[in-house]
Amino acid sequence: MDALRVTYRLRVESAQATARAEAVALEQTVEVPRSVVRDPFVEEQILGRVEEVVPEAGGSHLATIAYPAATTAFDPAQLVNVIFGNSSLHDDVECVDVELPPSILSALEGPRFGLPGLRKAVGVYDRPLTCTAVKPMGLDPAALADLCGSFARAGIDVIKDDHGLADHSFCPFEERVQACLAAVERVAEETGHRAVYVPNLTGTPETIGRQLRFAEDRGARAVLVAPMLVGLPAFWELCHRKASVPVIAHPAFGGAQRIAPELLFGRLFRLYGADAVIYVHFGGRFSYDRAVCRRLADRLVGSWAGILPSLPVPAGGMAVESAAEVVDFYGLESMLLIGGSLQLHRNDLAKRSRGFVEAVRRAAERLGSD
Amino acid sequence: MDALRVTYRLRVESAQATARAEAVALEQTVEVPRSVVRDPFVEEQILGRVEEVVPEAGGSHLATIAYPAATTAFDPAQLVNVIFGNSSLHDDVECVDVELPPSILSALEGPRFGLPGLRKAVGVYDRPLTCTAVKPMGLDPAALADLCGSFARAGIDVIKDDHGLADHSFCPFEERVQACLAAVERVAEETGHRAVYVPNLTGTPETIGRQLRFAEDRGARAVLVAPMLVGLPAFWELCHRKASVPVIAHPAFGGAQRIAPELLFGRLFRLYGADAVIYVHFGGRFSYDRAVCRRLADRLVGSWAGILPSLPVPAGGMAVESAAEVVDFYGLESMLLIGGSLQLHRNDLAKRSRGFVEAVRRAAERLGSD
Repeated sequence: MDALRVTYRLRVESAQATARAEAVALEQTVEVPRSVVRDPFVEEQILGRVEEVVPEAGGSHLATIAYPAATTAFDPAQLVNVIFGNSSLHDDVECVDVELPPSILSALEGPRFGLPGLRKAVGVYDRPLTCTAVKPMGLDPAALADLCGSFARAGIDVIKDDHGLADHSFCPFEERVQACLAAVERVAEETGHRAVYVPNLTGTPETIGRQLRFAEDRGARAVLVAPMLVGLPAFWELCHRKASVPVIAHPAFGGAQRIAPELLFGRLFRLYGADAVIYVHFGGRFSYDRAVCRRLADRLVGSWAGILPSLPVPAGGMAVESAAEVVDFYGLESMLLIGGSLQLHRNDLAKRSRGFVEAVRRAAERLGSD
Repeated sequence: MDALRVTYRLRVESAQATARAEAVALEQTVEVPRSVVRDPFVEEQILGRVEEVVPEAGGSHLATIAYPAATTAFDPAQLVNVIFGNSSLHDDVECVDVELPPSILSALEGPRFGLPGLRKAVGVYDRPLTCTAVKPMGLDPAALADLCGSFARAGIDVIKDDHGLADHSFCPFEERVQACLAAVERVAEETGHRAVYVPNLTGTPETIGRQLRFAEDRGARAVLVAPMLVGLPAFWELCHRKASVPVIAHPAFGGAQRIAPELLFGRLFRLYGADAVIYVHFGGRFSYDRAVCRRLADRLVGSWAGILPSLPVPAGGMAVESAAEVVDFYGLESMLLIGGSLQLHRNDLAKRSRGFVEAVRRAAERLGSD
């Protein structure tokens, strides 16, 4: 049968593990007690089927459940519901992996531009990209545009809005976007290096639609959206029905559900259309470890039926000093995002930004010559 | 200053608690190291301020942080971001409470119809309402409509779609909605009891907008949406810019761990416009306890500036046999949702449904006469 397979970590005793898995299979599909399922079509074509329950070190169990693909209605919201709707409300259930059939992959489509499209927007093909953020929130459009100009002049490839930059009274979206685009354009005319400024879109579906049109009309070559803030279905619609430029995904509000980061950011964000995915790199101020980051990045770039790869964007408290290490870890197909660290010393922003660009270039050359 | 206050549970040692709270205050606003905040406006008008850090039993700490209201841009997506955007990615941080200033309450508005509007749609003012779900997924429109008719004939007030009913090939949205509306209408003509059938809307923002128009045009008097599946900002826009009937919120994909259920379902769902909120009652197949359910219901109906109350809808594996107890616990201002339990015995559906209606009526009379 055409099915998706979802793996859950169940924190229950061995004696209860199979029954708990059966309960999840019911909860995620028919949501009635087993004895109420009498219709043969429901029994054969709808009900989730427990395929495997295996114990893990530490006492938990991994249960794999196959759901008929038709239960998802091939819809971006209902897919999330079948994967982890009601079961997200159970304390003892964590969603750790998903295997999707071609029917769902071709319905959701994945990135429209993907890693190659983002590289094309930037115009750099042979090394990891460099990225920074204009912030903090509270600066006015002129001050943010100044920052953009300095970063662009230092040679940084992608300059994104902090994801906290909304349509604030003290820094309205349209003024900010125009000022920042103009700033990178001025640098391009002076130096020939045309950095990609990436405005953050946030708000209701109608708001982000308006912001997208404004940004595209003014020449933005990519945009930033936090899928979990706006909702995965709204994100999908933006990527697939509205945007004509690559969309970079930000992880904000992504931790509130009990989903493995490599699944949410590595697999689902890619499936829903993110051309690049920002996530927290280990060793910074967040808590993922090396193995999680490795799996996450692998899932973003690994081959996956006909789905385009997404560019991995490790971030989150990374220092200029560790840029080379990060390149060694992820290799060429990545974009390093260093934010606050570039602004640490008041008069050093330009120098630190150039240092970042140089460190990535050198690390990439070393990688290329190995 | 006009500020919102957010309380976080920090799972850190006492010696680190204050520093951890300061880090959250930075993370949720400026997202740069403290030393990078040099602009006086940013320092005074943007930065989160730790107001209190108090130890709890068990070794964790409760930190209350005040954020200037202007940081939220008074926008439905950015509000979530300021409350729990990046910090949701930190394993040791849980979001437990929010206190909002009038400026934010009047921007988000809360329910448009609220508890009184839902009562008006149903036409019952003096007792708890009864509610059930048409399911399981997999039945065709005619079979679901049959269920609707049986429930309506038994006197149930509100008959909602299971939240897993999407626009499936085996049961298309439009056919289902028409069949179910017609079924309750036939019963109304026979018996005078006009039950409210509530279609489930799910999909991207454009899809749910189309589904809403279809349902309203055909006479639906309320609709069901899962805010965490479609995204809180899309939910807000549906309630405030699109729907002309009450909207009932379903908790699917609401998670259980890092955002307190009484905050997400009791406070935020109400703020974003839910006229009634389904949540899991203690003692069923989910894991909340009495105290959580009490606080959650209190937050839905308690006075809150000018914000309308939302109707509490306890659900989740409740049995007909415990209906009286549930009424005793929540009192008159509630709607009991019993789903699968009504269908437990194949030929007893009508009898069990009447039993449910009777049990609630009797419990309410007892309550009234106490």
